[in-house]
Amino acid sequence: MSATEIKIAIGVSNRHIHMAKQDMEILFGKGHEPKMLKHLSQPGQYASEEVVALLGPKGTIENVRLLMPLRKKTQIEVSLTDCYKLGIAPVIRDSGDIEGTPGLTLVGPKGQLTLKEGVIVAARHIHLRPKEAELFKLSDGDRISVQISGSRALRLDQVLIRVDPSFASELHIDTDEANAGAVKNGELATLLFTKEVARADRPLAKV
Amino acid sequence: MSATEIKIAIGVSNRHIHMAKQDMEILFGKGHEPKMLKHLSQPGQYASEEVVALLGPKGTIENVRLLMPLRKKTQIEVSLTDCYKLGIAPVIRDSGDIEGTPGLTLVGPKGQLTLKEGVIVAARHIHLRPKEAELFKLSDGDRISVQISGSRALRLDQVLIRVDPSFASELHIDTDEANAGAVKNGELATLLFTKEVARADRPLAKV
Repeated sequence: MSATEIKIAIGVSNRHIHMAKQDMEILFGKGHEPKMLKHLSQPGQYASEEVVALLGPKGTIENVRLLMPLRKKTQIEVSLTDCYKLGIAPVIRDSGDIEGTPGLTLVGPKGQLTLKEGVIVAARHIHLRPKEAELFKLSDGDRISVQISGSRALRLDQVLIRVDPSFASELHIDTDEANAGAVKNGELATLLFTKEVARADRPLAKV
Repeated sequence: MSATEIKIAIGVSNRHIHMAKQDMEILFGKGHEPKMLKHLSQPGQYASEEVVALLGPKGTIENVRLLMPLRKKTQIEVSLTDCYKLGIAPVIRDSGDIEGTPGLTLVGPKGQLTLKEGVIVAARHIHLRPKEAELFKLSDGDRISVQISGSRALRLDQVLIRVDPSFASELHIDTDEANAGAVKNGELATLLFTKEVARADRPLAKV
């Protein structure tokens, strides 16, 4: 590794749901408490035992897991591969930006629910803590590139930088992106400070 | 577009099978003649009406189409997404290089067949005619990069150059790669002559 290379762990996101309490109660029953299955790499987040089915106009995907904690609005994150299977238009968005996105029907053990919006293909992004962001001269909202090496080497552009003290530093990509690069969860990518974001005041740093 | 940009049409390959005559006869019956469904972009190649099921240790994929003409050895091209569904190890190879690759079971209307090898994830590649290759100073076997623009912009590296008079010029990627870049069949990518292959005698050319 050269002195100017910064590596980051890759977190591969499979399809999942961030759920609002009122929606969970429709699907799992009033007063239902989600059960912890396993901790995720982001502190305070966990995969729950609860899964639901996604029903689109063209197809169904079973066993889609709920990630906790609960959110104000239900957001369903799928891949483009999933969108084609479900028969819904893929809309690439940053997490939380769901206005005007497609909806679909969720089926749980106690009920079902048709959402008018909330299905996104999450834009690739990097979680950084403020100290790391400062070291790299990056700010929340910046977009950079990352290099994946190996037999299916590729450079992902337009990777959104998100900065928060609660984060663990990680590059989040979906299964299509991971498979295009033939990488798995926990492997490393290299941060690239491309000319779109390179500035005189943003030198490469070593961690 | 700058004077130094060369664009190429993207051909997205879904899972498919190139089949040997003796294997087709096991699956579809002795003397079976494949029926033409539609021409492919590569001259002389066509999708047949015939489909088979792929049976792996972990899962099944139905309706996988045979592409013609017949070949000497059966080769099954799938995505990494498919490999995980089938439960077989993904092996990325250039087309034709199937020695030591995983096998699986094919099921047709008249029989089934378990292959010891032949399942590959096809390495991304570009088909060029000799005149185009000459213009771009590229040779069969070279590897270059291509840029995909848009909301999921990415650069694919290690793209194999294949040169043959029978080809139509096209970048062939699989569904995982297309979905990672949010591109569809027939859209355009830009050829990049990266430093790995850049040489004094290989200037950028315009078509």
